[in-house]
Amino acid sequence: MSRNSIGKNIVLTSFGESHGPFIGAVLDGFPSGIKIDTHGLQLDLNRRKPGQNNITSPRAESDIVQIISGIFEDHSTGAPITFLIPNLDAKPQDYDGLKKTYRPGHADLLYQQKYGVRDHRGGGRSSARITAGWVAAGSLAKQFLRGNHSPKQHNQPIIITAWVNQIYTAVCDEFSEIPTFDQIEQSPVRCPNEKMSLKMIELIEAAKADGDSLGGKIRCAIENCPIGLGEPLFGKLQAVIGHYILSINAVKAISFGEGFNVANLKGSENNDEWILKNDKIGTKTNHSGGIIGGMATGEPIVFDVAFKPTSTIAKVQTTLDNDLKMINLEATGRHDPCVLPRAVPIVEAMTNLAIMDLLLEM
Amino acid sequence: MSRNSIGKNIVLTSFGESHGPFIGAVLDGFPSGIKIDTHGLQLDLNRRKPGQNNITSPRAESDIVQIISGIFEDHSTGAPITFLIPNLDAKPQDYDGLKKTYRPGHADLLYQQKYGVRDHRGGGRSSARITAGWVAAGSLAKQFLRGNHSPKQHNQPIIITAWVNQIYTAVCDEFSEIPTFDQIEQSPVRCPNEKMSLKMIELIEAAKADGDSLGGKIRCAIENCPIGLGEPLFGKLQAVIGHYILSINAVKAISFGEGFNVANLKGSENNDEWILKNDKIGTKTNHSGGIIGGMATGEPIVFDVAFKPTSTIAKVQTTLDNDLKMINLEATGRHDPCVLPRAVPIVEAMTNLAIMDLLLEM
Amino acid sequence: MSRNSIGKNIVLTSFGESHGPFIGAVLDGFPSGIKIDTHGLQLDLNRRKPGQNNITSPRAESDIVQIISGIFEDHSTGAPITFLIPNLDAKPQDYDGLKKTYRPGHADLLYQQKYGVRDHRGGGRSSARITAGWVAAGSLAKQFLRGNHSPKQHNQPIIITAWVNQIYTAVCDEFSEIPTFDQIEQSPVRCPNEKMSLKMIELIEAAKADGDSLGGKIRCAIENCPIGLGEPLFGKLQAVIGHYILSINAVKAISFGEGFNVANLKGSENNDEWILKNDKIGTKTNHSGGIIGGMATGEPIVFDVAFKPTSTIAKVQTTLDNDLKMINLEATGRHDPCVLPRAVPIVEAMTNLAIMDLLLEM
Amino acid sequence: MSRNSIGKNIVLTSFGESHGPFIGAVLDGFPSGIKIDTHGLQLDLNRRKPGQNNITSPRAESDIVQIISGIFEDHSTGAPITFLIPNLDAKPQDYDGLKKTYRPGHADLLYQQKYGVRDHRGGGRSSARITAGWVAAGSLAKQFLRGNHSPKQHNQPIIITAWVNQIYTAVCDEFSEIPTFDQIEQSPVRCPNEKMSLKMIELIEAAKADGDSLGGKIRCAIENCPIGLGEPLFGKLQAVIGHYILSINAVKAISFGEGFNVANLKGSENNDEWILKNDKIGTKTNHSGGIIGGMATGEPIVFDVAFKPTSTIAKVQTTLDNDLKMINLEATGRHDPCVLPRAVPIVEAMTNLAIMDLLLEM
Repeated sequence: MSRNSIGKNIVLTSFGESHGPFIGAVLDGFPSGIKIDTHGLQLDLNRRKPGQNNITSPRAESDIVQIISGIFEDHSTGAPITFLIPNLDAKPQDYDGLKKTYRPGHADLLYQQKYGVRDHRGGGRSSARITAGWVAAGSLAKQFLRGNHSPKQHNQPIIITAWVNQIYTAVCDEFSEIPTFDQIEQSPVRCPNEKMSLKMIELIEAAKADGDSLGGKIRCAIENCPIGLGEPLFGKLQAVIGHYILSINAVKAISFGEGFNVANLKGSENNDEWILKNDKIGTKTNHSGGIIGGMATGEPIVFDVAFKPTSTIAKVQTTLDNDLKMINLEATGRHDPCVLPRAVPIVEAMTNLAIMDLLLEM
Repeated sequence: MSRNSIGKNIVLTSFGESHGPFIGAVLDGFPSGIKIDTHGLQLDLNRRKPGQNNITSPRAESDIVQIISGIFEDHSTGAPITFLIPNLDAKPQDYDGLKKTYRPGHADLLYQQKYGVRDHRGGGRSSARITAGWVAAGSLAKQFLRGNHSPKQHNQPIIITAWVNQIYTAVCDEFSEIPTFDQIEQSPVRCPNEKMSLKMIELIEAAKADGDSLGGKIRCAIENCPIGLGEPLFGKLQAVIGHYILSINAVKAISFGEGFNVANLKGSENNDEWILKNDKIGTKTNHSGGIIGGMATGEPIVFDVAFKPTSTIAKVQTTLDNDLKMINLEATGRHDPCVLPRAVPIVEAMTNLAIMDLLLEM
Repeated sequence: MSRNSIGKNIVLTSFGESHGPFIGAVLDGFPSGIKIDTHGLQLDLNRRKPGQNNITSPRAESDIVQIISGIFEDHSTGAPITFLIPNLDAKPQDYDGLKKTYRPGHADLLYQQKYGVRDHRGGGRSSARITAGWVAAGSLAKQFLRGNHSPKQHNQPIIITAWVNQIYTAVCDEFSEIPTFDQIEQSPVRCPNEKMSLKMIELIEAAKADGDSLGGKIRCAIENCPIGLGEPLFGKLQAVIGHYILSINAVKAISFGEGFNVANLKGSENNDEWILKNDKIGTKTNHSGGIIGGMATGEPIVFDVAFKPTSTIAKVQTTLDNDLKMINLEATGRHDPCVLPRAVPIVEAMTNLAIMDLLLEM
Repeated sequence: MSRNSIGKNIVLTSFGESHGPFIGAVLDGFPSGIKIDTHGLQLDLNRRKPGQNNITSPRAESDIVQIISGIFEDHSTGAPITFLIPNLDAKPQDYDGLKKTYRPGHADLLYQQKYGVRDHRGGGRSSARITAGWVAAGSLAKQFLRGNHSPKQHNQPIIITAWVNQIYTAVCDEFSEIPTFDQIEQSPVRCPNEKMSLKMIELIEAAKADGDSLGGKIRCAIENCPIGLGEPLFGKLQAVIGHYILSINAVKAISFGEGFNVANLKGSENNDEWILKNDKIGTKTNHSGGIIGGMATGEPIVFDVAFKPTSTIAKVQTTLDNDLKMINLEATGRHDPCVLPRAVPIVEAMTNLAIMDLLLEM
């Protein structure tokens, strides 16, 4: 119980169900006196909202966020900031059939077993719709990190960028550079590689037509982290980022730098030698993904995240019903054939919150 | 600051430096009245201690643990349990050369930058020696989980087993079954596949002779988790396990079930259909690694962990010294050419603590 | 920062400002499957709301609470429960004069100094109006505690009762018994002693007419606490209750049992001897106020709370303005000449939350 | 469970039992690079140790503290600081009689009821001996606060001073000024009023001769707190200090400024008007005890604490034994006839820790 909050210095508390009147979040610990760009915040939410195009869920939600506390005359006051996002296109009746059915890959059955009761409407609390509040909170963290507000004379904006690196068989080559926001956003799937972006769209459309869904990978880069960010022992950068990212629906893996490939390497291949670059400390290579001993090396922090294919598919599956009888299921409700394009702003939001939490402690 | 504790219901606080008089830990929240097997606890520590054989660090530490509080007449009292482990074979003078040198792949430089001061002796606080206290604490958690002490009538022992799955080019095939403790322990590298175990030993010996080091993978399985273990939203099983495991020195990635392979799958391939097995709820397949929606499905929980090759190598490397001048470095101090064999009990310990933390909340 | 939550097992997060669109709260950790009496919850809020009678603030707020998450078909689901209470009779323009004035006894100046910015309207975040969300949350805790839902076979409802014991010169004698709800509620000042209740009303009316305000004391009793409730060392009953109660606006002191009078006693006078009462463990006397070693003895827990007189008074006072110039101030805005009658449900709410937090840990 | 830690930014974890090999504490979050005066630390411990003179417990403990981590070459490293204090004069056999007896006023019975098991030797975990570790930790906090290490350009040492204000019938008049350390320490009972100090000694000697014990009051003052210290809502100065102080053995009440006397006051009498003093913000009077809205006003923070008379007395008392049979008890074991003189450094330690915790968050 009482695990709906995350963070130590800047605490996100999440609330709401997919088909209740509102979902939302409280963000506590945001410093006072920061000018808030509510328009920019809404733009971030728009990147996550459903119905953006024909490869996302058709649920029509404008996801207009209302900030009901903590901001006064466009500035943060130091009080908790509360976001309310109405559920306008809730169609709970669509889910009546699910009252008595446990969908494969979904947590319906586990909620029922754990709590003895559940809000079955559209996944209730387990719906990824909940993440809209996280994106709102993460957007404020982004504004903070980009605005040079960090302590200890670290006067460079910290920039966090995520993009889609793989969807099913469409796999990007490594980027030699971190893509720009525009390169990412011009792709409906948020993949900056134009050729692969087109292939991803094709794959998603084909999966959709076939009543199926696709998984993939998102890469995220953090630029300009101050050297030493991250707290030994249990506030290590990778552990804190891991906690935030592994909390996102459908995530099954996270890796930093070389990730699982370190298993194939020798120390002499994997070690990053310390050097000076324009009088600043850095490393010659960045196999470590910018993290050593749980702390930032000054190099870009790079990590990869695996998302499973959407569990809701139109194909017939066998499953159990409320009486634990075997039944056949054809999914109803609205959903995305591939979650990755809309997951990009969620990964960014959670990473911004994780980094801000650690930065406030430096 | 103040990030040397982990856990909500059973809290591990870690203290000590590699070459101070003691390292240790406090375990707070352990229920009262549990019979403690201190001999079994010492056996777990012995699996982690250096000098076990000629492929581990030659540092000669008996790692005899003294329990100075919380246990009375062989039973836990509900008070915090404190473990003290003396550093007997500390050779701080071995590290005099490191006073002024920042080793590649190590956190020396970052500690110095972050704190302005550091205990340079043998890695100080960043040494993996610190994990001896974690293994002691994890051993008690193991005794609790195996002893059917869990709440809510879950009367099956929860068994957590880790083993080495890969070292460099020696890669195990998938196991159809979870190996037994004896199968694992009869291998000096803790790989239950005899043929691969021999190859791993050869690879490590060759790397050692060459002044190099090797990375690898550990797999961990959790059997008999009660259905529904794990707390939405931010206490999800994968997020909590992730936080604990990504806190272990040298870990660069964690994945659950299919892990990064979900990126290559369709929903119809990846979904685990709910079924009854002998009247108990389960899933037909276990692509999810026993976790859906952050909660245990009742199937074995399976995850993989990547460890980087030991950063300390005898080969010459370039790096920076205290004056940020480029120098050549040949490592001194004692170390393992491959950390994986000794990391197995650490992965088990952290997983036992993570699972116990969530179980106490059910 | 990030101090707007309280509790470990059942966490109250408070948000909102006195003159924003809503104030509210999130209650996380409430067990699932509990039938919720929303009508009863509203009745508790009505006891706190302004405008109840002519000795309370004339601000006309119906304080109708909307629950927007965590309850489905009249039962708790285990998800966070969110309360929204609109500010309907907000008159921010009343406070325009206070934009530039720091009121004595109020935190205006300190908010400005601390945060560099503040919502000056009606006290903003420091307004006692915020406690409406606490009362909503506390009402659910009350329903839980009274419903025999506690763990470990403690099958008696835990009853928490607060009442006014003193207002200015009207001081009640000790009660030999804990008063009933009806005895308390039939008094507009929530003092169960009829004679003193009448005197208190007279005193408040006189203070109001004179543009002044009055302080007083509330006593609170907790019946049927299970023996051993409270957690050594830093979760002692008195420390946890103290944290909750000292968080209430205007509270300046808390004492348990004999309280400050222990300073005048010998051990032989103050010790409570252990006895059996109808085969149940108890103490012959209850000088300790039902708490020894931080744990419940089984006897009623009794504590006293001091509330200062309302800081807003109509009398002319000198103070500082925004430019730190001395000025004369005559208060504007609506307020209570004595906060105690409306503070009774707040003390009860916070105590219910504190006790529930500890009970969930037993 | 897991309530043996206190603090958010600087966390004290307490461990040990009265008659185990060691008691101690871990202090996590102490900033790096602070020069530590270990001699000064020991002097603080000496103020708390038993056997100081013939009005304290005759238990002969030198209470020499060993710091086993977190300090290197006389400076804090940012790692957790661990204190070990051996129990040298433990006489567990003295307590054999208490194996089967529950002492009035002590928590023996409650530990047994709560945990089903207990370390009966000298109170075990509930012994005030545990506070030696708190005093060690608090001494470091004191060194930090006095050393001008606080953030945000608050460049004045924060000074925390406690003294005995009352023992039984010996009651000090109000001090117009905060006494000096020397004025306090020259009195064996730590009362700076010479006449009252003598009377207190007489009263304690008489009580001791009579096999009885005495209660009293300690006052504590905090000078030079930065304006705005304390965090709305649940990190209010009085609530945080309250949590720390109410965790000390034998404390039954805490009050700030006028304390319970506010019940007797009108707003026009109790309000502190804001003024400038030498161009610094302050208040004309200090009825509030230096705290308004949970934050420091800049005036001295003043609070009072009530300690009950020692529960262990030599007089015959009736009580229950392990079989819940009524018995007569004459106390054995060593104890203080009045805890107040030795409680002064404990109050100071906990207050230093509370203030440092909040200061690190400013």
